[in-house]
Amino acid sequence: MIGKLYGLGLGPGDPELLTLKAHRILTQCPVVAYPAPDTGPSFARQIAAPYLTAAQLEVPIVVPMRVERFPAQDIYTQAAETLSHHLDAGSDVAVLCEGDPFFYGSFMHLWRRLSHRFPTEVVPGVTGMAGAWTRANAPITWGDDILTVLPGTLPEAELVRRLGDTDAAVIMKLGRNLPKVRRALEATGLIERAIYVEQATMAGQAIIRLSERDDAEAPYFSMVLVPGEGRRL
Amino acid sequence: MIGKLYGLGLGPGDPELLTLKAHRILTQCPVVAYPAPDTGPSFARQIAAPYLTAAQLEVPIVVPMRVERFPAQDIYTQAAETLSHHLDAGSDVAVLCEGDPFFYGSFMHLWRRLSHRFPTEVVPGVTGMAGAWTRANAPITWGDDILTVLPGTLPEAELVRRLGDTDAAVIMKLGRNLPKVRRALEATGLIERAIYVEQATMAGQAIIRLSERDDAEAPYFSMVLVPGEGRRL
Repeated sequence: MIGKLYGLGLGPGDPELLTLKAHRILTQCPVVAYPAPDTGPSFARQIAAPYLTAAQLEVPIVVPMRVERFPAQDIYTQAAETLSHHLDAGSDVAVLCEGDPFFYGSFMHLWRRLSHRFPTEVVPGVTGMAGAWTRANAPITWGDDILTVLPGTLPEAELVRRLGDTDAAVIMKLGRNLPKVRRALEATGLIERAIYVEQATMAGQAIIRLSERDDAEAPYFSMVLVPGEGRRL
Repeated sequence: MIGKLYGLGLGPGDPELLTLKAHRILTQCPVVAYPAPDTGPSFARQIAAPYLTAAQLEVPIVVPMRVERFPAQDIYTQAAETLSHHLDAGSDVAVLCEGDPFFYGSFMHLWRRLSHRFPTEVVPGVTGMAGAWTRANAPITWGDDILTVLPGTLPEAELVRRLGDTDAAVIMKLGRNLPKVRRALEATGLIERAIYVEQATMAGQAIIRLSERDDAEAPYFSMVLVPGEGRRL
């Protein structure tokens, strides 16, 4: 019998925001893999930490935070090879995923390499952006609002064009793009509606108006929300 | 002591996709309110049913499926009044929400009326769309993909314009708009990528290519997914 591969969405950060299903599977899998930066702890492991036991084999998948495409491909190919040995040996493997596995998730790179070879199940999770708009006390879409999810990596003119043509927006991948994102929100008259959220539902949570945030590089778990203003009943 | 108001995201339908937190609060609240159509059972209550006990007071909020704006406003105002009596009497009240409360959630109409008067906590949930793309086995966004969430109520020309200008899309509120949505996807060359998903994670789950779906009216829990094709590692 070969093992089963699970992609477990762990939610935005608070360990209590795991689903009952992710919790059940997590505590039953003998092998637990997770992405880890080359410096510092794995965020995914931190979310799952309260539920891990010493009996589980942990497999960190070390992906440098800023890596070129080709080394990253090699890392996922190597990780898939490692996990396939455990699966071939009959062990179920849980891959931990921040947020939801199929929404910008690095799990997708393993899924692409392994799901045609092994039985695979993905468990959806609460997205980081849902954690953010909940803690910001900012309903994101009302009535027939259109929501656009944008990476902060887009060129400034593209950000301006798209922010000026949507009812609600979430801007991810801020990092060093924050000054550009701010200019685009100013150009579209949205800056006063924009909320900056960092580490929502986690110990380091910080929520402020973007207009009050400085331009220092934004950390990994951060985003900007522009809540919609659609039909109120 | 006045009671606390909770908006509990229950996820896409499978009761095991409640978060640990929503489950804990649900089982501790003496009063449980939920939206209910004027015909048939409440979907939100069905999701929570395995965890409800006879000791809890249930408060259905009956909202006709197709209702004009002004009667709907009266319904939420009346429901807020009912819940405020329980809160004033010191009972915590859990309002059940399909998906995530702040993502097109009807809970927002109660939150707007009550959260300034009573301590309020919202618990984010797995969205219906995350349940849909997970069960469709269709990662929705890769790399720097832009995601656009569109209501099927938009005019056809608007749908065409926006579908032609995004990497990935989710189209909600299909209902009688399905033929129009199909034409817009055909016009933008996306029809072969479009997946129709009905009642994801529930007993009645159905997933087919949109090109194989007829034009009959789409039920409440249905949507169309256009998965992104961004950077694979």
